[in-house]
Amino acid sequence: MRTSIATVSLSGSLTEKLTAASRAGFDGVEIFENDLLASPLTPEEIRARCADLGLTIDLYQPMRDIEAVPEAEFARNLRRARHKFELMRRLGTDTVLVCSSVSPLAEDDDTLAAAQLSQLADLAQEFGVRVAYEALAWGRHVSTYEHAWRIVETADHPALGTCLDSFHILSRSSDPEDLKGIADIPGEKIFYLQLADAPLLAMDVLQWSRHYRCFPGQGGFDVAGLVRHVLSTGYDGPLSLEVFNDVFRQAEAGPTAIDAHRSLLVLQEAVGVLEPPAPVVPTGIAFAELVTPDAEPVSALLGALGFARTARHRTKPVDLWQQGEARILVNTGPALRRDGTALAAIGLESPDPEGAARRAEALLAPVLPRRRTLEDAPLDAVAAPDGTELFFCARTTPELPGWHADFTDAAAQLPAGTGVQRIDHLALTQPWHHFDEATLFHRSVLGLQAQESVDVADPYGLLRSRAVTTPDGSVRIALSVGAAPSEDGAHAQHIALATEDVVTAARGFRKSGGQLLRMPANYYDDLAARFAFTEDELATYQDLGILYDRDAGGEFRHCYTRTVGRVFFELVQRDGDYRGYGAQNAPVRLAAQHTAKGLTGG
Amino acid sequence: MRTSIATVSLSGSLTEKLTAASRAGFDGVEIFENDLLASPLTPEEIRARCADLGLTIDLYQPMRDIEAVPEAEFARNLRRARHKFELMRRLGTDTVLVCSSVSPLAEDDDTLAAAQLSQLADLAQEFGVRVAYEALAWGRHVSTYEHAWRIVETADHPALGTCLDSFHILSRSSDPEDLKGIADIPGEKIFYLQLADAPLLAMDVLQWSRHYRCFPGQGGFDVAGLVRHVLSTGYDGPLSLEVFNDVFRQAEAGPTAIDAHRSLLVLQEAVGVLEPPAPVVPTGIAFAELVTPDAEPVSALLGALGFARTARHRTKPVDLWQQGEARILVNTGPALRRDGTALAAIGLESPDPEGAARRAEALLAPVLPRRRTLEDAPLDAVAAPDGTELFFCARTTPELPGWHADFTDAAAQLPAGTGVQRIDHLALTQPWHHFDEATLFHRSVLGLQAQESVDVADPYGLLRSRAVTTPDGSVRIALSVGAAPSEDGAHAQHIALATEDVVTAARGFRKSGGQLLRMPANYYDDLAARFAFTEDELATYQDLGILYDRDAGGEFRHCYTRTVGRVFFELVQRDGDYRGYGAQNAPVRLAAQHTAKGLTGG
Repeated sequence: MRTSIATVSLSGSLTEKLTAASRAGFDGVEIFENDLLASPLTPEEIRARCADLGLTIDLYQPMRDIEAVPEAEFARNLRRARHKFELMRRLGTDTVLVCSSVSPLAEDDDTLAAAQLSQLADLAQEFGVRVAYEALAWGRHVSTYEHAWRIVETADHPALGTCLDSFHILSRSSDPEDLKGIADIPGEKIFYLQLADAPLLAMDVLQWSRHYRCFPGQGGFDVAGLVRHVLSTGYDGPLSLEVFNDVFRQAEAGPTAIDAHRSLLVLQEAVGVLEPPAPVVPTGIAFAELVTPDAEPVSALLGALGFARTARHRTKPVDLWQQGEARILVNTGPALRRDGTALAAIGLESPDPEGAARRAEALLAPVLPRRRTLEDAPLDAVAAPDGTELFFCARTTPELPGWHADFTDAAAQLPAGTGVQRIDHLALTQPWHHFDEATLFHRSVLGLQAQESVDVADPYGLLRSRAVTTPDGSVRIALSVGAAPSEDGAHAQHIALATEDVVTAARGFRKSGGQLLRMPANYYDDLAARFAFTEDELATYQDLGILYDRDAGGEFRHCYTRTVGRVFFELVQRDGDYRGYGAQNAPVRLAAQHTAKGLTGG
Repeated sequence: MRTSIATVSLSGSLTEKLTAASRAGFDGVEIFENDLLASPLTPEEIRARCADLGLTIDLYQPMRDIEAVPEAEFARNLRRARHKFELMRRLGTDTVLVCSSVSPLAEDDDTLAAAQLSQLADLAQEFGVRVAYEALAWGRHVSTYEHAWRIVETADHPALGTCLDSFHILSRSSDPEDLKGIADIPGEKIFYLQLADAPLLAMDVLQWSRHYRCFPGQGGFDVAGLVRHVLSTGYDGPLSLEVFNDVFRQAEAGPTAIDAHRSLLVLQEAVGVLEPPAPVVPTGIAFAELVTPDAEPVSALLGALGFARTARHRTKPVDLWQQGEARILVNTGPALRRDGTALAAIGLESPDPEGAARRAEALLAPVLPRRRTLEDAPLDAVAAPDGTELFFCARTTPELPGWHADFTDAAAQLPAGTGVQRIDHLALTQPWHHFDEATLFHRSVLGLQAQESVDVADPYGLLRSRAVTTPDGSVRIALSVGAAPSEDGAHAQHIALATEDVVTAARGFRKSGGQLLRMPANYYDDLAARFAFTEDELATYQDLGILYDRDAGGEFRHCYTRTVGRVFFELVQRDGDYRGYGAQNAPVRLAAQHTAKGLTGG
């Protein structure tokens, strides 16, 4: 289907918005009136710019407070409308959005509304314009799509149809029953379809609408369900995004437009009108790759954690450190991002790396140049929204992943290790503006599932955190973001290592010279109040800085190393079917990290 | 009355919070459990730190999900409580907050709740602790203060009382009738009083409570009305602030604590238990002072605007530019803030400068060193939250303000001018984190009145704007803030100059070589659709970049100069009783400023 986006959904000047929409692959745009008013381009120049960019202008919007008003007021409204229809002719667009009135002058009189909308449509017809009448969720008398359609049906005018908006419909009711009336509308009378998702918030609907809309799949609405109803009518207009969002208003238009277009591709797949390459769900974490200007601190940390340097890349300054199924690459070569030590790439074990890459590309993930030399195995890679490189790795045999062939064995003696079995999860702080995008990306491109998002109190601000995982937990990535951009920037990333016995692992780490993050005594006093630990157990946990959590499924014990650059490690022990990440303990851990930072002056 | 603040209201580590509370003049604190858990200090050390800082620990909080549960669960709760009472003994605090249960285990059984709370109070008594039972607005069975009090009354235990919280009470009902039940509670059974304000939002009360609370006077609640009811009972405990706010969590603790304490001083004045020096409402803007590293661009702009350099300061590199009653000081001497050209100070004409300064100091405004030399007139000054210096100036005669004596007459010939009569308003962008504080500051310290806040769409983000004024409009200051901190920073400030005829003023400005900000043709096309202007009128407005607005009271015409540093000028013509600032036109103006910036490469 054709895709479109309202200019109000993107940030910047009108020309920035148009350029971003075109580059992201949209077929058309809705021109939001205020964007036109603020533009130095004439309507003819805007029309030409759109044509150059391969964009149609699918809608001009909005006209407000038109219908069901006293005659003198309606005469003024028609005068205003004539100006706008003339403008639309210059713009070369043929559909105008008319929102149901919120004016105190509007009367609760459907017959009057239909008669005046019919007069408006008469005038519109002279200019070759169609009027799409939409019920605002907070319209004074008309606030449901059924009501708007009844008025359109009564008017029975060829230039008058209805516009359906997923926000206005789904914000009033999430009951699928309430969508069935859509099937009663002839598809050719649905002149337009505007789509937005939104988180499920219990708040004033006007504020909700103006500040918190998001792209389909980023919120809690069943937008796909609604679109299926609309398509069943024979509607063949564009799928168009109209999103008012405080965050998007500040974000760069380019990435937002790509994010927006991806949401429509995923939506079309969900409703069965588009068939991108199928998702290839990863089966494990092949490796995590750190880039660092100085391998020494990271190597010391990995050594103490019981990792051995088992191989070196044939052609690049990259070492492989390994313990059990946990593999960490340490890259001291030139890298894109060199703000100290950082987690730059993740290898995902994939049953079909090429298929995974094809899907990623179809869903607009930036494809990275393959890492390969003459002897290298080819590795398909794409960039996640935070810039992390994601490699899709074959697993030719359980013991020897395909990417492993790039490495020569190093001379290292395999040490005893500390019992680390594999990477439990990766935790990545997302740049502000890109949190909802990151979740949708990981879900749609990688086929991961998103868990509930949780708020975590850092001493210097609130963090929002959300995990994306495979159903079996073989891949777990915890995404987080601050409540607002901060200079300090909680930009930490961490690698959590799974053990069967965190006490043994922590002791082994410390014995090898590793330093564990100390947790405050008050925390253990509180544990004693909440749970029936023996004194010995608690003393051990306190000595090692081990934190404890439980949920309905099981238990979680975890502790932390110091931070190198942006990166630190966590040792975790999951027992039973514990599903979380110790979020309950995050405020204490974050405070301890701030304290440690203060103490070491870094 | 004694003042207190919950540590959760401030940002940072526990010791940072305590230090900030002490410096701001609070008598005590509530220790929020998570702050204690995350602190490396032992309870004894926290107690000692508080004593050193002159702070009492007035409350430990919260204990949750205690009452009206099955016997086995209650036994576990008592075990947990014993731990916490022991902890409180070490802390040296004697009151604990118990919130009404939200547990799914809790039963709707007041008799059981009273019996179990009574048992809890028995245990508390052994430790010298009092239990303050509070109804959470979203409590499972107990959600009103009357209900919590009935249970406390039934239990009839000397160590059990109630805690009243303005958020939990006023978020449920703003009807003064609903507060009358407070008078039925004996004051000695009100063990604690927690205060928070909040903006009037229609949203889920739990989210509202956790993210949007603010200090009394910064929101929409009648907190003073509630406090009057509480004081009528004979309550003599502290007034304590418990505020959960996403912005405060990120802001520096020091300024937030001062802001918080000021809110309690103003509150005590409102309920008649404190009498700071009375407000001295300013009667006009004596001057606006620009600091600049290079006087040339500003002088050129002022010259073209029809100002004349009429005087020079006796001892400082400060020029006075004047036209009508509008006076602009241009300061090229060393200044605190030198990020290019900026509005650094405002002179407020005051009927009692010393009284105004005394009130400002009593309300914790930072008092600045007086500007004076041997020959200077003394000028009392304080700093506003955004760092702007506010001078209180006597007006000895209408023609010759007191501060004017510092200046010698310059040789300038008075030019004809462009008809500027006075400063209409000053518009100041506030640093993020300080918007609510700024409004309360200007209201309470300067005695100005706050108008409604409005949202304004900038192409690169949303701005919130709120004006503070005298009733007669002689002083108008428009405060604004971005939706989030941005690197770009919409840090502009502007000086709006009142004229009786903006067309003449704009023409005069241009004739003298001034450049007016061009507005897009589309804007004038829209004006033609909305209003019945003649073509000539519209052509004139378009030629000069004049914008138009009207409200119920009158009309507003305004246009803009280019920006120097952070500062630009606006020429305005108010007709009738127009009360606004042309906010309707701000998006177009902001977009035009972005375009102009792009064109000139700056």
